[in-house]
Amino acid sequence: MNTTAKIRLYVDHPLGAGQCVALDRDQAHYLFGVMRQGTGAPVLLFNGRDGEWLAHVTQAGKRGGEVTCEAQTRPLQMPPDLWLLFAPIKKARTDFIVEKAAEMGAARICPVQTEFTNAERIRQDRLQAHAIEAAEQCGGTYVPEVCDLQKLDRLLEGWDADRQLMFCDEALTGRSSALAGSAVEKGGADGPWAVLIGPEGGFSDAERARLRDLPFAHPVSLGPRILRADTAAVAALTLWQMQLGDWR
Amino acid sequence: MNTTAKIRLYVDHPLGAGQCVALDRDQAHYLFGVMRQGTGAPVLLFNGRDGEWLAHVTQAGKRGGEVTCEAQTRPLQMPPDLWLLFAPIKKARTDFIVEKAAEMGAARICPVQTEFTNAERIRQDRLQAHAIEAAEQCGGTYVPEVCDLQKLDRLLEGWDADRQLMFCDEALTGRSSALAGSAVEKGGADGPWAVLIGPEGGFSDAERARLRDLPFAHPVSLGPRILRADTAAVAALTLWQMQLGDWR
Repeated sequence: MNTTAKIRLYVDHPLGAGQCVALDRDQAHYLFGVMRQGTGAPVLLFNGRDGEWLAHVTQAGKRGGEVTCEAQTRPLQMPPDLWLLFAPIKKARTDFIVEKAAEMGAARICPVQTEFTNAERIRQDRLQAHAIEAAEQCGGTYVPEVCDLQKLDRLLEGWDADRQLMFCDEALTGRSSALAGSAVEKGGADGPWAVLIGPEGGFSDAERARLRDLPFAHPVSLGPRILRADTAAVAALTLWQMQLGDWR
Repeated sequence: MNTTAKIRLYVDHPLGAGQCVALDRDQAHYLFGVMRQGTGAPVLLFNGRDGEWLAHVTQAGKRGGEVTCEAQTRPLQMPPDLWLLFAPIKKARTDFIVEKAAEMGAARICPVQTEFTNAERIRQDRLQAHAIEAAEQCGGTYVPEVCDLQKLDRLLEGWDADRQLMFCDEALTGRSSALAGSAVEKGGADGPWAVLIGPEGGFSDAERARLRDLPFAHPVSLGPRILRADTAAVAALTLWQMQLGDWR
Protein backbone atom coordinates (compact mmCIF):
# COMPACT_ATOMS: atom_id res chain seq x y z
CA MET A 1 0.00 0.00 0.00
CA ASN A 2 1.38 3.35 -1.05
CA THR A 3 1.97 5.63 1.94
CA THR A 4 3.59 8.61 0.25
CA ALA A 5 0.48 10.74 -0.09
CA LYS A 6 0.79 14.12 -1.74
CA ILE A 7 -2.88 15.06 -1.94
CA ARG A 8 -4.07 16.98 1.11
CA LEU A 9 -7.74 17.51 1.86
CA TYR A 10 -9.45 19.63 4.47
CA VAL A 11 -12.46 17.90 6.07
CA ASP A 12 -14.84 19.07 8.75
CA HIS A 13 -14.86 15.76 10.64
CA PRO A 14 -12.99 14.41 13.68
CA LEU A 15 -9.79 12.55 12.76
CA GLY A 16 -8.31 9.59 14.65
CA ALA A 17 -6.96 6.07 14.08
CA GLY A 18 -9.55 3.92 12.25
CA GLN A 19 -11.87 6.89 11.76
CA CYS A 20 -13.92 6.76 8.54
CA VAL A 21 -14.48 10.09 6.82
CA ALA A 22 -17.02 10.68 4.05
CA LEU A 23 -15.91 12.71 1.04
CA ASP A 24 -18.31 15.19 -0.51
CA ARG A 25 -19.06 15.46 -4.20
CA ASP A 26 -16.38 18.10 -4.92
CA GLN A 27 -13.70 16.12 -3.11
CA ALA A 28 -14.71 12.91 -4.90
CA HIS A 29 -14.58 14.72 -8.25
CA TYR A 30 -11.14 16.11 -7.47
CA LEU A 31 -9.67 12.91 -6.05
CA PHE A 32 -11.15 10.32 -8.43
CA GLY A 33 -11.87 12.44 -11.53
CA VAL A 34 -9.14 15.06 -11.73
CA MET A 35 -6.37 13.21 -9.87
CA ARG A 36 -7.38 9.72 -11.14
CA GLN A 37 -7.07 8.07 -7.72
CA GLY A 38 -9.02 4.98 -6.66
CA THR A 39 -9.52 2.58 -3.75
CA GLY A 40 -6.35 2.18 -1.70
CA ALA A 41 -4.92 5.56 -2.72
CA PRO A 42 -3.24 7.49 0.10
CA VAL A 43 -4.41 10.96 1.04
CA LEU A 44 -3.56 13.37 3.85
CA LEU A 45 -6.42 14.85 5.87
CA PHE A 46 -6.60 17.77 8.29
CA ASN A 47 -9.52 19.49 9.96
CA GLY A 48 -7.87 22.40 11.74
CA ARG A 49 -8.09 20.64 15.12
CA ASP A 50 -6.54 17.14 15.06
CA GLY A 51 -3.33 17.65 13.07
CA GLU A 52 -2.63 15.84 9.80
CA TRP A 53 -3.55 12.18 9.24
CA LEU A 54 -2.60 9.64 6.62
CA ALA A 55 -5.71 7.97 5.27
CA HIS A 56 -6.52 5.58 2.44
CA VAL A 57 -9.48 5.55 0.10
CA THR A 58 -11.88 2.79 1.15
CA GLN A 59 -14.75 3.71 -1.17
CA ALA A 60 -14.60 5.63 -4.44
CA GLY A 61 -17.69 6.85 -6.26
CA LYS A 62 -18.77 9.60 -8.63
CA ARG A 63 -20.78 11.46 -6.04
CA GLY A 64 -18.77 10.73 -2.96
CA GLY A 65 -16.47 8.29 -1.27
CA GLU A 66 -14.89 7.32 2.00
CA VAL A 67 -11.38 7.41 3.39
CA THR A 68 -10.12 5.71 6.56
CA CYS A 69 -7.51 7.28 8.84
CA GLU A 70 -4.43 5.27 9.75
CA ALA A 71 -1.92 7.37 11.66
CA GLN A 72 -1.22 10.96 12.52
CA THR A 73 1.56 12.36 10.34
CA ARG A 74 1.82 15.79 11.99
CA PRO A 75 0.43 17.35 15.14
CA LEU A 76 -1.79 20.43 14.97
CA GLN A 77 0.42 23.44 14.43
CA MET A 78 -1.40 26.62 15.37
CA PRO A 79 -0.22 29.83 13.73
CA PRO A 80 0.58 32.78 16.01
CA ASP A 81 -2.49 34.71 17.24
CA LEU A 82 -2.30 37.19 14.37
CA TRP A 83 -5.24 38.71 12.51
CA LEU A 84 -5.04 40.34 9.10
CA LEU A 85 -7.37 43.31 8.61
CA PHE A 86 -7.59 44.53 5.01
CA ALA A 87 -9.89 46.62 2.84
CA PRO A 88 -11.24 44.48 -0.01
CA ILE A 89 -10.32 45.56 -3.51
CA LYS A 90 -10.97 44.04 -6.94
CA LYS A 91 -12.12 40.43 -6.87
CA ALA A 92 -8.95 38.73 -8.09
CA ARG A 93 -6.70 40.71 -5.74
CA THR A 94 -9.01 40.12 -2.76
CA ASP A 95 -8.85 36.38 -3.49
CA PHE A 96 -5.06 36.66 -3.58
CA ILE A 97 -4.91 38.47 -0.25
CA VAL A 98 -6.94 35.71 1.44
CA GLU A 99 -4.80 32.98 -0.16
CA LYS A 100 -1.58 34.73 0.85
CA ALA A 101 -2.75 35.41 4.41
CA ALA A 102 -3.48 31.70 4.87
CA GLU A 103 -0.05 30.74 3.49
CA MET A 104 1.67 33.36 5.63
CA GLY A 105 0.06 32.01 8.79
CA ALA A 106 -2.62 34.51 9.76
CA ALA A 107 -5.02 33.00 12.31
CA ARG A 108 -7.99 35.15 11.27
CA ILE A 109 -8.73 37.23 8.17
CA CYS A 110 -11.01 40.27 8.60
CA PRO A 111 -12.13 42.25 5.54
CA VAL A 112 -12.85 45.80 6.75
CA GLN A 113 -14.67 48.71 5.18
CA THR A 114 -12.76 51.98 5.44
CA GLU A 115 -13.80 55.42 4.24
CA PHE A 116 -12.12 54.88 0.87
CA THR A 117 -13.24 51.25 0.40
CA ASN A 118 -15.51 50.76 -2.59
CA ALA A 119 -16.64 47.24 -1.73
CA GLU A 120 -20.05 47.10 -0.07
CA ARG A 121 -20.10 43.36 0.39
CA ILE A 122 -17.91 40.31 -0.01
CA ARG A 123 -18.61 36.65 -0.72
CA GLN A 124 -17.50 35.30 2.65
CA ASP A 125 -18.13 31.67 1.59
CA ARG A 126 -15.97 32.04 -1.51
CA LEU A 127 -13.15 33.68 0.43
CA GLN A 128 -13.33 30.96 3.12
CA ALA A 129 -13.01 28.35 0.35
CA HIS A 130 -9.87 30.14 -0.88
CA ALA A 131 -8.41 30.00 2.63
CA ILE A 132 -9.10 26.25 2.80
CA GLU A 133 -7.49 25.66 -0.60
CA ALA A 134 -4.43 27.65 0.44
CA ALA A 135 -4.12 25.61 3.65
CA GLU A 136 -4.37 22.39 1.62
CA GLN A 137 -1.58 23.63 -0.68
CA CYS A 138 0.83 25.09 1.85
CA GLY A 139 0.93 22.10 4.18
CA GLY A 140 -0.77 23.92 7.04
CA THR A 141 -2.83 21.99 9.59
CA TYR A 142 -4.94 25.04 10.44
CA VAL A 143 -7.42 27.07 8.37
CA PRO A 144 -7.85 30.75 9.22
CA GLU A 145 -11.41 31.93 9.68
CA VAL A 146 -12.52 34.55 7.14
CA CYS A 147 -14.90 37.01 8.83
CA ASP A 148 -17.68 38.86 7.11
CA LEU A 149 -17.09 42.45 6.00
CA GLN A 150 -17.33 44.92 8.89
CA LYS A 151 -16.75 48.65 9.24
CA LEU A 152 -13.27 49.50 10.51
CA ASP A 153 -14.56 52.03 13.04
CA ARG A 154 -17.05 49.52 14.44
CA LEU A 155 -14.30 46.92 14.73
CA LEU A 156 -12.04 49.38 16.56
CA GLU A 157 -14.84 50.36 18.96
CA GLY A 158 -15.05 46.82 20.28
CA TRP A 159 -11.29 46.20 20.13
CA ASP A 160 -9.60 44.23 22.91
CA ALA A 161 -6.83 46.62 23.98
CA ASP A 162 -4.52 43.68 24.68
CA ARG A 163 -4.36 42.99 20.94
CA GLN A 164 -1.61 45.16 19.45
CA LEU A 165 -2.19 46.58 15.96
CA MET A 166 0.57 46.95 13.39
CA PHE A 167 -0.78 49.68 11.17
CA CYS A 168 0.81 50.06 7.73
CA ASP A 169 0.76 53.76 7.04
CA GLU A 170 1.38 55.02 3.50
CA ALA A 171 2.12 58.43 4.97
CA LEU A 172 5.24 56.92 6.57
CA THR A 173 6.63 55.79 3.19
CA GLY A 174 10.40 55.88 3.44
CA ARG A 175 10.57 55.61 7.25
CA SER A 176 11.58 52.47 9.13
CA SER A 177 9.73 49.23 8.65
CA ALA A 178 10.85 47.81 11.99
CA LEU A 179 8.40 47.58 14.86
CA ALA A 180 9.70 49.78 17.65
CA GLY A 181 11.37 47.92 20.51
CA SER A 182 8.64 49.16 22.85
CA ALA A 183 5.97 47.58 20.64
CA VAL A 184 7.84 44.31 20.63
CA GLU A 185 8.15 44.40 24.42
CA LYS A 186 4.57 45.46 24.98
CA GLY A 187 2.98 43.01 22.57
CA GLY A 188 5.64 40.41 23.22
CA ALA A 189 6.02 37.23 21.29
CA ASP A 190 3.01 35.56 22.81
CA GLY A 191 0.49 38.40 22.94
CA PRO A 192 -2.22 38.76 20.29
CA TRP A 193 -1.61 41.06 17.33
CA ALA A 194 -3.30 42.28 14.18
CA VAL A 195 -1.89 43.76 10.97
CA LEU A 196 -3.95 46.43 9.19
CA ILE A 197 -3.55 47.18 5.47
CA GLY A 198 -5.36 50.19 4.03
CA PRO A 199 -7.31 50.41 0.77
CA GLU A 200 -5.68 51.42 -2.53
CA GLY A 201 -6.68 55.05 -1.93
CA GLY A 202 -5.08 55.04 1.53
CA PHE A 203 -6.70 55.97 4.82
CA SER A 204 -8.63 59.22 5.24
CA ASP A 205 -7.07 61.92 7.43
CA ALA A 206 -9.70 61.25 10.10
CA GLU A 207 -8.98 57.51 10.08
CA ARG A 208 -5.24 58.07 10.21
CA ALA A 209 -5.58 60.47 13.15
CA ARG A 210 -7.80 58.03 14.99
CA LEU A 211 -5.47 55.11 14.35
CA ARG A 212 -2.45 57.06 15.56
CA ASP A 213 -4.22 57.90 18.81
CA LEU A 214 -5.02 54.29 19.67
CA PRO A 215 -2.74 53.13 22.49
CA PHE A 216 -2.39 49.66 20.94
CA ALA A 217 -1.58 50.88 17.40
CA HIS A 218 1.99 50.80 16.03
CA PRO A 219 2.57 52.51 12.67
CA VAL A 220 5.20 50.99 10.39
CA SER A 221 6.40 51.83 6.89
CA LEU A 222 6.47 49.40 3.99
CA GLY A 223 9.43 50.99 2.22
CA PRO A 224 9.87 53.96 -0.12
CA ARG A 225 7.55 52.77 -2.91
CA ILE A 226 3.75 52.62 -2.81
CA LEU A 227 2.65 48.99 -2.73
CA ARG A 228 -0.58 47.55 -4.07
CA ALA A 229 -2.78 46.15 -1.31
CA ASP A 230 -2.01 42.52 -2.10
CA THR A 231 1.76 43.15 -2.11
CA ALA A 232 1.43 45.14 1.11
CA ALA A 233 -0.42 42.27 2.81
CA VAL A 234 2.38 39.76 2.12
CA ALA A 235 5.12 42.27 2.99
CA ALA A 236 3.45 43.28 6.27
CA LEU A 237 2.83 39.67 7.32
CA THR A 238 6.50 38.90 6.52
CA LEU A 239 7.68 41.81 8.68
CA TRP A 240 5.51 40.67 11.56
CA GLN A 241 6.33 36.97 11.27
CA MET A 242 10.01 37.72 11.17
CA GLN A 243 10.02 40.07 14.14
CA LEU A 244 7.39 38.49 16.38
CA GLY A 245 5.99 35.36 14.74
CA ASP A 246 6.95 31.82 13.82
CA TRP A 247 9.63 32.83 11.28
CA ARG A 248 12.07 33.89 14.00
CA MET B 1 -3.28 75.33 -14.92
CA ASN B 2 -3.76 72.22 -12.84
CA THR B 3 -0.48 70.97 -11.42
CA THR B 4 -1.71 68.10 -9.24
CA ALA B 5 -1.08 65.30 -11.69
CA LYS B 6 -1.95 61.78 -10.64
CA ILE B 7 -1.37 60.00 -13.94
CA ARG B 8 2.19 58.71 -14.29
CA LEU B 9 3.60 57.57 -17.61
CA TYR B 10 6.85 55.86 -18.46
CA VAL B 11 8.46 57.19 -21.65
CA ASP B 12 11.68 56.24 -23.40
CA HIS B 13 12.75 59.83 -24.10
CA PRO B 14 15.07 62.32 -22.37
CA LEU B 15 13.28 64.55 -19.88
CA GLY B 16 14.18 68.17 -19.07
CA ALA B 17 12.62 71.63 -18.76
CA GLY B 18 10.77 72.56 -21.96
CA GLN B 19 11.34 69.11 -23.44
CA CYS B 20 8.52 67.93 -25.73
CA VAL B 21 7.72 64.24 -25.58
CA ALA B 22 5.58 62.38 -28.11
CA LEU B 23 2.98 59.95 -26.78
CA ASP B 24 2.43 56.67 -28.57
CA ARG B 25 -0.93 55.29 -29.59
CA ASP B 26 -1.45 53.26 -26.37
CA GLN B 27 -0.57 56.20 -24.15
CA ALA B 28 -2.86 58.52 -26.12
CA HIS B 29 -5.69 55.99 -25.86
CA TYR B 30 -5.17 55.67 -22.09
CA LEU B 31 -4.76 59.39 -21.40
CA PHE B 32 -7.39 60.86 -23.73
CA GLY B 33 -9.78 57.91 -24.17
CA VAL B 34 -9.81 56.03 -20.86
CA MET B 35 -8.88 58.88 -18.51
CA ARG B 36 -10.72 61.59 -20.51
CA GLN B 37 -7.87 64.08 -20.32
CA GLY B 38 -7.23 66.81 -22.89
CA THR B 39 -4.89 69.69 -23.75
CA GLY B 40 -3.52 71.34 -20.61
CA ALA B 41 -3.96 68.24 -18.45
CA PRO B 42 -1.07 67.55 -16.09
CA VAL B 43 0.81 64.25 -16.22
CA LEU B 44 3.93 62.93 -14.50
CA LEU B 45 6.65 61.41 -16.67
CA PHE B 46 9.66 59.24 -15.85
CA ASN B 47 12.11 57.41 -18.05
CA GLY B 48 14.22 55.49 -15.55
CA ARG B 49 17.10 57.98 -15.90
CA ASP B 50 16.02 61.60 -15.35
CA GLY B 51 13.73 61.34 -12.31
CA GLU B 52 10.07 62.38 -12.41
CA TRP B 53 8.84 65.43 -14.31
CA LEU B 54 5.59 67.35 -14.28
CA ALA B 55 4.39 67.85 -17.85
CA HIS B 56 1.25 69.17 -19.51
CA VAL B 57 -0.53 67.91 -22.58
CA THR B 58 0.21 70.23 -25.50
CA GLN B 59 -1.37 68.08 -28.24
CA ALA B 60 -4.10 65.48 -27.90
CA GLY B 61 -5.11 63.14 -30.70
CA LYS B 62 -6.59 59.71 -31.23
CA ARG B 63 -3.38 58.16 -32.45
CA GLY B 64 -0.87 60.11 -30.42
CA GLY B 65 -0.14 63.36 -28.69
CA GLU B 66 2.53 65.47 -27.13
CA VAL B 67 3.34 66.59 -23.61
CA THR B 68 5.80 69.28 -22.56
CA CYS B 69 7.95 69.01 -19.42
CA GLU B 70 7.87 71.85 -16.90
CA ALA B 71 9.79 70.95 -13.78
CA GLN B 72 11.36 67.97 -12.08
CA THR B 73 9.14 66.75 -9.25
CA ARG B 74 11.48 64.01 -7.94
CA PRO B 75 15.06 63.02 -8.58
CA LEU B 76 15.95 59.57 -9.91
CA GLN B 77 15.77 57.12 -7.03
CA MET B 78 17.68 53.97 -7.86
CA PRO B 79 16.64 50.79 -6.06
CA PRO B 80 19.37 48.80 -4.30
CA ASP B 81 21.48 46.59 -6.62
CA LEU B 82 19.25 43.57 -6.06
CA TRP B 83 18.26 40.99 -8.65
CA LEU B 84 15.33 38.62 -8.35
CA LEU B 85 15.88 35.17 -9.87
CA PHE B 86 12.75 33.05 -10.11
CA ALA B 87 11.50 29.99 -11.99
CA PRO B 88 8.48 30.96 -14.13
CA ILE B 89 5.20 29.24 -13.30
CA LYS B 90 1.68 29.65 -14.64
CA LYS B 91 1.11 32.80 -16.70
CA ALA B 92 -0.95 34.80 -14.19
CA ARG B 93 1.40 34.06 -11.30
CA THR B 94 4.49 34.85 -13.37
CA ASP B 95 2.93 38.21 -14.26
CA PHE B 96 2.31 38.79 -10.56
CA ILE B 97 5.90 37.99 -9.63
CA VAL B 98 7.21 40.55 -12.12
CA GLU B 99 4.72 43.19 -10.95
CA LYS B 100 5.58 42.55 -7.29
CA ALA B 101 9.34 42.55 -7.90
CA ALA B 102 9.05 45.99 -9.53
CA GLU B 103 6.97 47.32 -6.61
CA MET B 104 9.36 45.81 -4.06
CA GLY B 105 12.35 47.53 -5.67
CA ALA B 106 14.26 44.82 -7.51
CA ALA B 107 16.74 46.34 -9.97
CA ARG B 108 16.69 43.38 -12.35
CA ILE B 109 14.31 40.45 -12.81
CA CYS B 110 15.76 37.20 -14.17
CA PRO B 111 13.45 34.28 -15.02
CA VAL B 112 15.52 31.11 -14.67
CA GLN B 113 14.99 27.55 -15.83
CA THR B 114 15.66 24.99 -13.11
CA GLU B 115 15.46 21.21 -13.33
CA PHE B 116 11.82 21.22 -12.18
CA THR B 117 10.73 24.25 -14.24
CA ASN B 118 8.10 23.42 -16.83
CA ALA B 119 8.30 26.70 -18.77
CA GLU B 120 10.41 26.47 -21.92
CA ARG B 121 10.00 30.09 -22.90
CA ILE B 122 8.57 33.35 -21.61
CA ARG B 123 7.18 36.45 -23.30
CA GLN B 124 9.92 38.84 -22.26
CA ASP B 125 8.20 41.82 -23.92
CA ARG B 126 4.95 41.18 -22.05
CA LEU B 127 6.75 40.78 -18.72
CA GLN B 128 8.73 43.99 -19.35
CA ALA B 129 5.43 45.80 -19.99
CA HIS B 130 4.17 44.51 -16.62
CA ALA B 131 7.29 45.89 -14.91
CA ILE B 132 6.70 49.29 -16.54
CA GLU B 133 3.05 49.34 -15.47
CA ALA B 134 4.03 48.44 -11.90
CA ALA B 135 6.60 51.26 -11.83
CA GLU B 136 3.94 53.70 -13.11
CA GLN B 137 1.60 52.57 -10.33
CA CYS B 138 3.98 52.41 -7.40
CA GLY B 139 5.52 55.84 -7.85
CA GLY B 140 8.96 54.51 -8.76
CA THR B 141 11.29 56.48 -11.01
CA TYR B 142 13.14 53.36 -12.14
CA VAL B 143 12.00 50.35 -14.19
CA PRO B 144 13.70 47.01 -13.55
CA GLU B 145 14.97 45.20 -16.61
CA VAL B 146 13.30 41.84 -17.24
CA CYS B 147 15.85 39.43 -18.73
CA ASP B 148 15.05 36.60 -21.09
CA LEU B 149 14.71 33.09 -19.69
CA GLN B 150 18.07 31.45 -19.01
CA LYS B 151 19.18 28.18 -17.44
CA LEU B 152 20.04 28.51 -13.75
CA ASP B 153 23.26 26.50 -14.09
CA ARG B 154 24.44 28.64 -17.02
CA LEU B 155 23.70 31.79 -15.03
CA LEU B 156 25.64 30.47 -12.04
CA GLU B 157 28.62 29.53 -14.24
CA GLY B 158 29.10 33.16 -15.24
CA TRP B 159 28.23 34.55 -11.80
CA ASP B 160 30.19 37.51 -10.41
CA ALA B 161 31.35 36.16 -7.03
CA ASP B 162 30.97 39.65 -5.52
CA ARG B 163 27.20 39.35 -5.89
CA GLN B 164 25.84 37.56 -2.82
CA LEU B 165 22.90 35.20 -3.35
CA MET B 166 20.08 34.81 -0.84
CA PHE B 167 18.78 31.36 -1.66
CA CYS B 168 15.31 30.49 -0.35
CA ASP B 169 15.51 26.82 0.48
CA GLU B 170 12.32 24.85 1.08
CA ALA B 171 14.41 22.20 2.82
CA LEU B 172 15.08 24.75 5.57
CA THR B 173 11.37 25.25 6.29
CA GLY B 174 11.05 26.06 9.94
CA ARG B 175 14.60 27.35 10.41
CA SER B 176 15.55 31.02 10.74
CA SER B 177 14.63 33.54 8.08
CA ALA B 178 17.35 35.98 9.10
CA LEU B 179 20.43 36.38 6.95
CA ALA B 180 23.41 35.30 9.04
CA GLY B 181 25.48 38.16 10.45
CA SER B 182 28.44 37.00 8.36
CA ALA B 183 26.38 37.31 5.17
CA VAL B 184 25.32 40.80 6.11
CA GLU B 185 28.92 41.78 6.81
CA LYS B 186 30.27 40.12 3.69
CA GLY B 187 27.64 41.44 1.31
CA GLY B 188 27.27 44.65 3.22
CA ALA B 189 24.63 47.23 2.60
CA ASP B 190 26.18 48.48 -0.59
CA GLY B 191 27.33 45.28 -2.25
CA PRO B 192 25.29 43.65 -5.01
CA TRP B 193 22.86 40.87 -4.09
CA ALA B 194 20.36 38.53 -5.69
CA VAL B 195 17.41 36.61 -4.27
CA LEU B 196 16.64 33.18 -5.72
CA ILE B 197 13.16 31.60 -5.50
CA GLY B 198 12.75 28.00 -6.60
CA PRO B 199 9.98 26.49 -8.72
CA GLU B 200 6.78 25.06 -7.22
CA GLY B 201 8.34 21.58 -7.17
CA GLY B 202 11.41 22.84 -5.31
CA PHE B 203 15.04 22.46 -6.32
CA SER B 204 16.47 19.07 -7.27
CA ASP B 205 18.94 17.46 -4.87
CA ALA B 206 21.77 18.19 -7.31
CA GLU B 207 20.78 21.85 -7.60
CA ARG B 208 20.44 22.21 -3.85
CA ALA B 209 23.88 20.65 -3.26
CA ARG B 210 25.45 22.90 -5.88
CA LEU B 211 23.81 26.02 -4.45
CA ARG B 212 24.95 25.19 -0.92
CA ASP B 213 28.53 24.84 -2.11
CA LEU B 214 28.67 28.27 -3.72
CA PRO B 215 30.76 30.60 -1.56
CA PHE B 216 28.41 33.55 -2.27
CA ALA B 217 25.15 31.66 -1.51
CA HIS B 218 23.28 32.20 1.77
CA PRO B 219 20.34 29.85 2.45
CA VAL B 220 17.39 31.29 4.37
CA SER B 221 14.04 29.87 5.40
CA LEU B 222 10.67 31.42 4.57
CA GLY B 223 8.87 30.13 7.66
CA PRO B 224 7.25 26.84 8.62
CA ARG B 225 4.64 26.71 5.82
CA ILE B 226 5.30 26.02 2.13
CA LEU B 227 4.72 29.21 0.14
CA ARG B 228 3.61 29.46 -3.47
CA ALA B 229 6.30 30.99 -5.68
CA ASP B 230 4.58 34.38 -5.95
CA THR B 231 4.12 34.64 -2.18
CA ALA B 232 7.72 33.53 -1.66
CA ALA B 233 9.00 36.24 -4.02
CA VAL B 234 7.32 39.05 -2.05
CA ALA B 235 8.29 37.55 1.32
CA ALA B 236 11.94 37.07 0.29
CA LEU B 237 12.22 40.59 -1.13
CA THR B 238 10.70 41.94 2.10
CA LEU B 239 13.25 40.03 4.21
CA TRP B 240 16.11 41.36 2.10
CA GLN B 241 14.85 44.95 1.88
CA MET B 242 14.35 45.05 5.62
CA GLN B 243 17.76 43.61 6.53
CA LEU B 244 19.95 45.09 3.79
CA GLY B 245 17.90 47.29 1.47
CA ASP B 246 16.04 50.58 1.39
CA TRP B 247 13.42 49.58 3.99
CA ARG B 248 15.89 49.86 6.89
